[in-house]
Amino acid sequence: MAALINDTFLRALRREPVPYTPVWIMRQAGRYLPEYNATRKRAGSFLGLAKNPDYATEVTLQPLARFPLDAAILFSDILTVPDAMGLGLYFAEGEGPKFERPLRDEAAIRSLRVPEPRESLAYVLDAVKQIRGALAGKVPLIGFSGSPYTLACYMVEGGGSDDFRQIKTLLYSRPELLHHLLDINAQAVTAYLNAQIEAGAQAVMIFDTWGGSLPDAAYREFSLAYMQRVVAGLHARWQGEAVPSIVFTKGGGLWLEAIAAIGSTAVGLDWTVDIGEARSRIGERVALQGNLDPMVLFSPPPAIAGQVARVLDAYGHGSGHVFNLGHGVSQFTPPEHVAALVEAVHSLSRRHH
Amino acid sequence: MAALINDTFLRALRREPVPYTPVWIMRQAGRYLPEYNATRKRAGSFLGLAKNPDYATEVTLQPLARFPLDAAILFSDILTVPDAMGLGLYFAEGEGPKFERPLRDEAAIRSLRVPEPRESLAYVLDAVKQIRGALAGKVPLIGFSGSPYTLACYMVEGGGSDDFRQIKTLLYSRPELLHHLLDINAQAVTAYLNAQIEAGAQAVMIFDTWGGSLPDAAYREFSLAYMQRVVAGLHARWQGEAVPSIVFTKGGGLWLEAIAAIGSTAVGLDWTVDIGEARSRIGERVALQGNLDPMVLFSPPPAIAGQVARVLDAYGHGSGHVFNLGHGVSQFTPPEHVAALVEAVHSLSRRHH
Repeated sequence: MAALINDTFLRALRREPVPYTPVWIMRQAGRYLPEYNATRKRAGSFLGLAKNPDYATEVTLQPLARFPLDAAILFSDILTVPDAMGLGLYFAEGEGPKFERPLRDEAAIRSLRVPEPRESLAYVLDAVKQIRGALAGKVPLIGFSGSPYTLACYMVEGGGSDDFRQIKTLLYSRPELLHHLLDINAQAVTAYLNAQIEAGAQAVMIFDTWGGSLPDAAYREFSLAYMQRVVAGLHARWQGEAVPSIVFTKGGGLWLEAIAAIGSTAVGLDWTVDIGEARSRIGERVALQGNLDPMVLFSPPPAIAGQVARVLDAYGHGSGHVFNLGHGVSQFTPPEHVAALVEAVHSLSRRHH
Repeated sequence: MAALINDTFLRALRREPVPYTPVWIMRQAGRYLPEYNATRKRAGSFLGLAKNPDYATEVTLQPLARFPLDAAILFSDILTVPDAMGLGLYFAEGEGPKFERPLRDEAAIRSLRVPEPRESLAYVLDAVKQIRGALAGKVPLIGFSGSPYTLACYMVEGGGSDDFRQIKTLLYSRPELLHHLLDINAQAVTAYLNAQIEAGAQAVMIFDTWGGSLPDAAYREFSLAYMQRVVAGLHARWQGEAVPSIVFTKGGGLWLEAIAAIGSTAVGLDWTVDIGEARSRIGERVALQGNLDPMVLFSPPPAIAGQVARVLDAYGHGSGHVFNLGHGVSQFTPPEHVAALVEAVHSLSRRHH
């Protein structure tokens, strides 16, 4: 593997001195980019992209060709693990991810097995290897998965949900059965992220998209505890290099102290949290990633720079901050506004280092 | 007006001793009740119900006939004020509230006027008077409105939104124009709630459904500041009686200290917050209302009682707690599970008083 040319992202995660605040963007390879849409059209579908290492490599690199981002993130989906378990992931037009065979009864949950990533998720590992080669050390590559609880939400609901009625009925009525499902998911996510690390991922991120829909006690018991098990099972180092981990619970601002205690290198913040307050709460223990409101990118560039400055100033002086949005970039975002964001982060952050 | 027979709700809001924890349920008059659906069918539509004082009185009283609830809440909608401003509220089947004439440009915003509630909202005030008469002092009647920012969301988006792109584009690009809109809304909500109080509402609640979608600083500037202006303008007393106010920001758990400082009697909590932690943060300054996860009501009654006990125990000993869900009751809830909830709150809370 080529030596890393820009290691700002990894250094910021380790809270070591950096010349500027590194930035990458959740969903940076995505529908707001015309070149992504062109590749997707050639691939025929989202899954046609994600399951083909050539296409996955192509779209992973597209935003890096446009913007001086400080990290690449594997192009994939948070739901590859339940797909590998046989649930049949598909995307209905305009409806988000769905499963052909959601978990509808106890027998379906009891029959789940932990997939062997080198078999059923080989296409992801091949993509990781190919992307690492194509990056040639330009920036580090981030691997990722959905959190055990977030996977369970989709597996039980069969897709997205406004109220999470089915998974919460399971949670409140049959907690031991949900714990069984989460145990399987935690084992599967751990093996999957470790396989990504072995294939070349230089950092990993756990996306807990739906943990924030839970009451405080349930979040700790059903989401955070299983992310803790995943983090504890990850390769801390691989081939002599530390492998940082980032845990992101959307809507988790209430629980930052608890999240910071599970052993990950960094905590992702959504846009509702003041990053300065987050730093005073947990900044001595972890690095912070975030947290500009993605909707800021619909303002003119001077307003974008102003909001970027607010986030940078709220974090304050020193390392330990990886700039990002507080959620994925909207498909309607003008690409030139993403350019303005990256430029603003790089230029305005220098005075803080 | 008849003397109040059950004043437990008002006493709990004043943090005075009560024999048990009072309970009411957001959207307690609603689609989970067959008798509500029957009345709605007769009325022809949701707005046909809400705009007819006879029907509004009928459905307001329906849950009280079934369950020993400790308060009634006016049957109405949070969006009556912008409807009275001429935006044309309507409900598309299965899509939630929409406006025929959303605010699409600066001229539309500049031309808005504060409606006179005794003219364009007379149907609401008539309903309040009629409901007070029909209640005959059984329990207090709560009036309500959407918050200035939540109204603005619907007025600018034209309906619900996944990302609030239009209102946030206004917020980040033209903050002074959004402030103008919010100023109008705050004046209108204040006049409207005062008119409800004058018509007989014995407490008022401000529903800030969408303030929680904002970054910390924007929440304070664009949502909380305007609720503070509303609260400051409310009749603190009417006809010799104190009129308590409740402010509820869904997703506002991060900001409880700030919310508790705006002068309302009580703060509503969604289900993500631990109510014991909320009490230690702000319980010396305000009463708390909440906060059971509405999805608990899809479990069997013993599980419901167990989760009710968790909330009651987390709040702990003494007055100052009005039990409620952390969000509106789901239309799919079995009514007998609501009965189990009310029974559990009344019986299990006695040991805390």
